[in-house]
This record gives sequence, C-alpha cells and structure tokens, in this order.
Amino acid sequence: SLTPTNRTAQIMKYGFPGMANLRSHNDFILSYDQRNRVPYWVFEHLTPESVKKNDAVDRSKSEFFEDSSVHQFFRATNKDYLGSGFDRGHMAAAGNHKFCQEHVNETFVLSNIAPQVGKGFNRDSWNRLEKHVRKLLFNYPNVYVCTGPLYLPRRESDGKVYVKYQVIGANSVAVPTHFFKVVVCEEKSGGLHMEAYVMPNQVIDDNTPIHSFQVRGKRLRYKMFGSKCSS
Amino acid sequence: SLTPTNRTAQIMKYGFPGMANLRSHNDFILSYDQRNRVPYWVFEHLTPESVKKNDAVDRSKSEFFEDSSVHQFFRATNKDYLGSGFDRGHMAAAGNHKFCQEHVNETFVLSNIAPQVGKGFNRDSWNRLEKHVRKLLFNYPNVYVCTGPLYLPRRESDGKVYVKYQVIGANSVAVPTHFFKVVVCEEKSGGLHMEAYVMPNQVIDDNTPIHSFQVRGKRLRYKMFGSKCSS
Ligand SMILES: [Mg+2]
Ligand SMILES: [Mg+2]
Repeated sequence: SLTPTNRTAQIMKYGFPGMANLRSHNDFILSYDQRNRVPYWVFEHLTPESVKKNDAVDRSKSEFFEDSSVHQFFRATNKDYLGSGFDRGHMAAAGNHKFCQEHVNETFVLSNIAPQVGKGFNRDSWNRLEKHVRKLLFNYPNVYVCTGPLYLPRRESDGKVYVKYQVIGANSVAVPTHFFKVVVCEEKSGGLHMEAYVMPNQVIDDNTPIHSFQVRGKRLRYKMFGSKCSS
Repeated sequence: SLTPTNRTAQIMKYGFPGMANLRSHNDFILSYDQRNRVPYWVFEHLTPESVKKNDAVDRSKSEFFEDSSVHQFFRATNKDYLGSGFDRGHMAAAGNHKFCQEHVNETFVLSNIAPQVGKGFNRDSWNRLEKHVRKLLFNYPNVYVCTGPLYLPRRESDGKVYVKYQVIGANSVAVPTHFFKVVVCEEKSGGLHMEAYVMPNQVIDDNTPIHSFQVRGKRLRYKMFGSKCSS
C-alpha cells in the first residue's frame, strides 16, 4: 500500500507545472489560484483500478465543501455558486476516483471546482472528454492528466486585445473562458502518447467531436500558464 | 557586508505573500505571474542608505532588459511595450535602490515591470506615492514595501460582474486595472506603522492627494491576491 508521500510522487511523475499553493489529496494534487478562487491546475494519475466501477462507491453521497485550508479571504463557498447559473465543475473528475468513497468525496472540495456552463458543457461535451480519458486505460496501464482553467485574450471592436471573464458570488469566483486537459499515457513498451485539449466554457453542439478541440501540446503548455489569442 | 541569502531574509522579514516563481535580486525580491507577464508582488526593504542621493549612480545608464530566467513562453519583452501607449512602470522603484549602479540596473528587469499609464500616473501620482514612501525614512529607520498589480472586478450594465483588462504585445502582457502598495515602517521604539494604497492605472488629477488612495490594511491584503469589487 502507498503512503501519501509516495502517492504524490507517483501522481506528479512528469513534474509540477508550478509550485503555488499546492494541496495534496489522497488521489490527486492541485495548485490553487487565490486570485480567482479556482485551481491553477489539477494533476491525476489514473489506472484501470482507479476508474473501475465500484459498488462500494456512491457519488450521490458526496457533497461539495469549502476548503478550510484556504484562508477565507481567498476561499470559494457553495453560496458563491448558488443562483449563478453555473455548475460546480470538477477539475479532477469524480469518476476518476472510484477506489473508495473517501477518494471520490475529496474531489468535491471547492478548491477542485470551477464554474462551468452546465447543460451543453459540464454535463455533455466536457463529460465526454472525461470519459474519453478514462477509455484510454483500455490501451494504456498508466494515464496522467493535468486539467485546469484558462482566461484567453480576445480582440474587441476597438482593435485592442482584452482578457475578460465573469466573476460570481461575494468571493468573486472566476468563470474561466476555456478549460484545458493534457493527457500523458504510458505505453506498455515504455513509450509515451500525449493528447491535449482546449474547450470553450460554453454550450457546445452535441455533434461536435471532442477531437476537434485537440491542440498541439506545445501550444497548450503555453496556454496553461500563459495565453495567446485563441485562433 | 551581507551575503545575498541573509539580505533576502532581511527584505522578507515580515513574510512571503506567496511562493510562486520567486526571483531574488540583490536589493529586492519578486514573485512572477507567468499568466500575466508582470509580477504578482515585489518586496523591498528601504533604509536611509538605500535611497540617499549617490553621485556614483546614474539611472539614465540603466536599460530595460528581458528576464532570461523566465521561459520565453512566459516572458515580457521590450517589443511588447513598444507602441502600446503604456510606460514600462517599475514595481520596485528605481529610486529606492541607489546604493550602487548594479542595484538600480536590476530594477530594470522586465519581470519587475508592468504597463502603466505614463502621463498622469507613472510619471505623476504613482511617482508621488513612491516619493512619499522614501520620505518615511526621515521618521523610520527601516521601511518594508510590497508593491504589485491588481485586476479588480467591475459591475457592467448587464448586472453581472467582470474582470476585464487589456493585454499588450505578442506575449499578451497584462495591463493591470490598479496597483497596490503596502508599507510597514519600524519605529525606533520597535512599534510598527502601516500604510496601504490602491491606485487606479489611469490619469489622476495632480491635485488629488495620495492619501485619498489610502485603504485599510486588511482590505488591501485581501486585494493583493483576491479581489472584491472596488467601492
Ligand atoms: Mg463535471
Ligand atoms: Mg515609475
């Protein structure tokens, strides 16, 4: 069995994207953005065991809860989301942590959550992307996933380029313009397969294949912490 | 004389606001925001010696330069500012580091710079605030200064609240909506005196006293990394 420390090393095998406000959970690691009250990024290590159907685990028993390790000045609350029109969208997906009830419960901490458009995105296209990632475990024994929000600049009619995003609730929780997901899969041979996605936080037509949101890894790495105009 | 390590401890005597992308210079410490290509915050420790007129130091010999320690994906360049209409505004002020030419030169690294409105702000009101801070050294032997950008939310006509800021150049360098400065002064008796300021990044009437931008410390600490609607 794994101690939390070597589980962290396992999850973060391919390196930390940053060191800001790290939080180590039993089955995922996150870096928290105090300014926006959502994660900078979340890292997961998936195996066939961690995503396998488990009758002992019931997602409907999990409840969203504040992260008491975050100072209340920088903490998102359930009240911030209430009536906002946005879903509390998981970055580390609940369905990726079915090893035990405690693991799935931990994904409901609000520091792992960001405001997502519900119908047409969180419950549909984004969910299809999450399922696609889990299906990779049929082909790869180890899958590493980095997920997070983006705030991409856009040129406006005055010719200037702006970053603009809504914030919700008394704590001004940021509504990201896009979300990214970078997946690194270990082949049985030891080789690596990588996929990277950027999806806009908006209603997406159900007929749009998730592969149309696939991007080059280098460009996405750029986007994870920097940002260029979306093309 | 001081080794760089104990100089860092001296500058950061009152604690680090965060640990993200720290850069330690001879006379100031900064935390760099890769997403916005400007600092999160800059920390200085001023003494009467560090701000005293020094004929051996000539600010006009200093040139703005890229921070080669920052990955080029996340680095601001002089070209980003060129023709933008914004000044390259110092966070750690050049005038605070007159001990030697090397110290003043180091404040010209672009990771210590953010786009500021020139006339009416950087060259006027913001400069008056910087001078005010230096004058505190007539009364206090040690002054600690934390300075940085803010991106404050605003309610728009649709009733929703947004963060919106311009970005400039090929590297999308953020133009902050406001800047903050928090000053902690050590009294000879050992007591502490604190002042905190938030100024909008816009033309400010020269007759507006800087004290009208003074805010309560607690609210500003909130604003340094979080943000509420400006009142
Ligand atoms: Mg979801
Ligand atoms: Mg200046």
